[in-house]
Amino acid sequence: MTSYAQTSSDELHALRAALEDEYNGFKAKGLSLNMARGKPSAAQLDLSLPLLDILSSTSDLRAADGTDIRNYGVGTGLPEARTLMAVLLDDDPANVIVCGNSSLNIMYDEIARCMNFGTLGCAPWATLDTVKWLCPVPGYDRHFAITEQFGIEMINIAMDDNGPCMDQVEELVANDPAIKGIWCVPTYSNPGGVEYSDEVVRRLARMTCAAPDFRIFWDNAYCVHHLDPDPAHHAHVLDIGAACREAGHPDRYLKFASTSKITFPGAGVAALAASPANIAEIARMMNVQTIGHDKFNQLRHVRFLKDADGIAAHMAKHAAIIRPKFDLVEQKLSEGLADVDCHWSTPRGGYFVCFYGPAGTAKRIVELAKEAGVTMTGAGAPFPYHKDPEDSVIRIAPTLPPIEELDLALDVFVCCVKLASVEALLND
Amino acid sequence: MTSYAQTSSDELHALRAALEDEYNGFKAKGLSLNMARGKPSAAQLDLSLPLLDILSSTSDLRAADGTDIRNYGVGTGLPEARTLMAVLLDDDPANVIVCGNSSLNIMYDEIARCMNFGTLGCAPWATLDTVKWLCPVPGYDRHFAITEQFGIEMINIAMDDNGPCMDQVEELVANDPAIKGIWCVPTYSNPGGVEYSDEVVRRLARMTCAAPDFRIFWDNAYCVHHLDPDPAHHAHVLDIGAACREAGHPDRYLKFASTSKITFPGAGVAALAASPANIAEIARMMNVQTIGHDKFNQLRHVRFLKDADGIAAHMAKHAAIIRPKFDLVEQKLSEGLADVDCHWSTPRGGYFVCFYGPAGTAKRIVELAKEAGVTMTGAGAPFPYHKDPEDSVIRIAPTLPPIEELDLALDVFVCCVKLASVEALLND
Repeated sequence: MTSYAQTSSDELHALRAALEDEYNGFKAKGLSLNMARGKPSAAQLDLSLPLLDILSSTSDLRAADGTDIRNYGVGTGLPEARTLMAVLLDDDPANVIVCGNSSLNIMYDEIARCMNFGTLGCAPWATLDTVKWLCPVPGYDRHFAITEQFGIEMINIAMDDNGPCMDQVEELVANDPAIKGIWCVPTYSNPGGVEYSDEVVRRLARMTCAAPDFRIFWDNAYCVHHLDPDPAHHAHVLDIGAACREAGHPDRYLKFASTSKITFPGAGVAALAASPANIAEIARMMNVQTIGHDKFNQLRHVRFLKDADGIAAHMAKHAAIIRPKFDLVEQKLSEGLADVDCHWSTPRGGYFVCFYGPAGTAKRIVELAKEAGVTMTGAGAPFPYHKDPEDSVIRIAPTLPPIEELDLALDVFVCCVKLASVEALLND
Repeated sequence: MTSYAQTSSDELHALRAALEDEYNGFKAKGLSLNMARGKPSAAQLDLSLPLLDILSSTSDLRAADGTDIRNYGVGTGLPEARTLMAVLLDDDPANVIVCGNSSLNIMYDEIARCMNFGTLGCAPWATLDTVKWLCPVPGYDRHFAITEQFGIEMINIAMDDNGPCMDQVEELVANDPAIKGIWCVPTYSNPGGVEYSDEVVRRLARMTCAAPDFRIFWDNAYCVHHLDPDPAHHAHVLDIGAACREAGHPDRYLKFASTSKITFPGAGVAALAASPANIAEIARMMNVQTIGHDKFNQLRHVRFLKDADGIAAHMAKHAAIIRPKFDLVEQKLSEGLADVDCHWSTPRGGYFVCFYGPAGTAKRIVELAKEAGVTMTGAGAPFPYHKDPEDSVIRIAPTLPPIEELDLALDVFVCCVKLASVEALLND
């Protein structure tokens, strides 16, 4: 076949007419399909139903240390919950604080604390003229929404197959003390599916920062969310904590994780890990914000997931459900888009496929899909201020729809990509 | 009997020796008793055990509107949870946001938002030279800890049997735009047990404030926490929301409540109610902080407590357990302290008895009790910066210990009050 770019104008006109026919056919179906958000499907949620039977009125409601979980207290989380979450955080339970249901909330609160109070003796960020933040792109829209709400100036950092472009990062942080942090999703990044290389992790830990209170926000949201049953094909990203300690910057990182996409989104358990100095400061500040988080849900998760092996066994069940969906995305895009100047990620885990269309087509593709009843994540969403400089990136979230719906949604998407690409070429 | 103040020095010396003997007798017992924190007892916690059986793997896990509660979303809370919490908040469900497990956390976050972003178009408080706050005293130590952490200058406001001294409040807020708020626990205040009078509520709503963004933080923590079985003996504090609307200051108040002392502390549901303008702003800001709170726990509470009648029936069970404890405090203090220049509250609800000893004795009483194995709330705790100007107020929390332990702890407390009072007179 001939790529669209090498096709004559007459042929493109004919192609557009044919694609419009196909597209109108989809539109006539009155579809309502969704590939927008990284949500587990109902079948995945079913996997965690036994969690609801763990604690009943006749259960032992004491933690291992004898704490009556029904009453106030234990601000840093039940000891056994800290041990469980330390598995996800790749850290010592002593460095872990277990919180409520949302790791995003922990990240937000940490930035709020740094804004209001500063950290480890440095000035409150809110007292500075400018605060800047490094945003590897494409990235997670909800991260960028936090830094945007706090008026923090966001700087795009290019991503490649190894993580953020470290030459760019090192140059910036060495020279600008206003740069206070970086968003990182090191394992199966959202949406790129990138696994940070050891070298990238070590350079992040080692680099010279003009700001002594520069912080790596290490959102390991997909740390155990592998797609392949073979552990040899799982990502094993280096621990940023160990790397920072080795590099002599022990307080530089804050690690976050949750069980939102392990058990139930919105009713999971979230936690952070950091250096002893950071943990002590956060625990002290947090003790004014709340008396403690939900210890029932902590104990439920401990008794349900048990340990690293329990988590791995549970995640294998998730993988069995979603792997065919990722395979279908790969198959449909490969089959349908051979002629289009585009590419996409083939992640080994996480929740997204990242699609890179011809420059200037992403908004149009999403618009076309929307009009045909297929909701995609908004074009621009994976970028600070919703501005994709190339207008080319679209995040595909294949997990939520049943596979038959996904199949149809992908047919629509492929048609929209082709149509938008032909339109773009004809408008050149 | 003769009051200590009219007793001769020789007799006081003899009395001190006798009290020291009694005190040393208590000390020799090696007690470990606690009247420090407002925690429900194990028997009270047992009342809510059926809550744990409400949702199981075979339950209907859809909200009334069809929402699958297992997945992400519904940032302002399930509609039926908003309806339930509207009962506690005395408001329309549309004006309610249901959050996580802690109303303290909601208050903290609201102050953080006002500091960082301002509210309804006013300047962020963090950009002002000074922010001040009115603190009716004695009050709740955890409220004061929040304003202290944010560097807000706290001003003591005297409390009487009707609530805060409104002459003082009106004078201050009319003339000082730096005063941005007031802490209020309007029903069975912590620790005074005060029920705000209609006149106080109306004056708070009506008063002229130099700051357009002055906010009444209305922490109705004990709104349904009556001790008497007869509803005629329950507090019925006017709704500050209605009062503010009537007075033409519809955005002045923020109401908070939780089920922490209805079901489980730390695993209850907390919520706020405010004007449509405030609710819209908070919902918009909060949507960046978190995707949503725990909908399982919201639905559990809805199905367990059901409605206003369900809540009232459940609270009557709590009252049956704790009323004898409050009666015992009243009896023991009345019997034991007739000769001491002191008084105390006899609340109709809430979690505390407020004890006012002779000036200059509170720290000593708490110290003596501690050394005899009875932990009390720290003297000074009910005041900003932990400074009780009279050193006279002690918060008694009788709910947690079993009644036999409470009985013994009160004997120790009475002895300590008498001993400290005699010591003070001898040192004069």
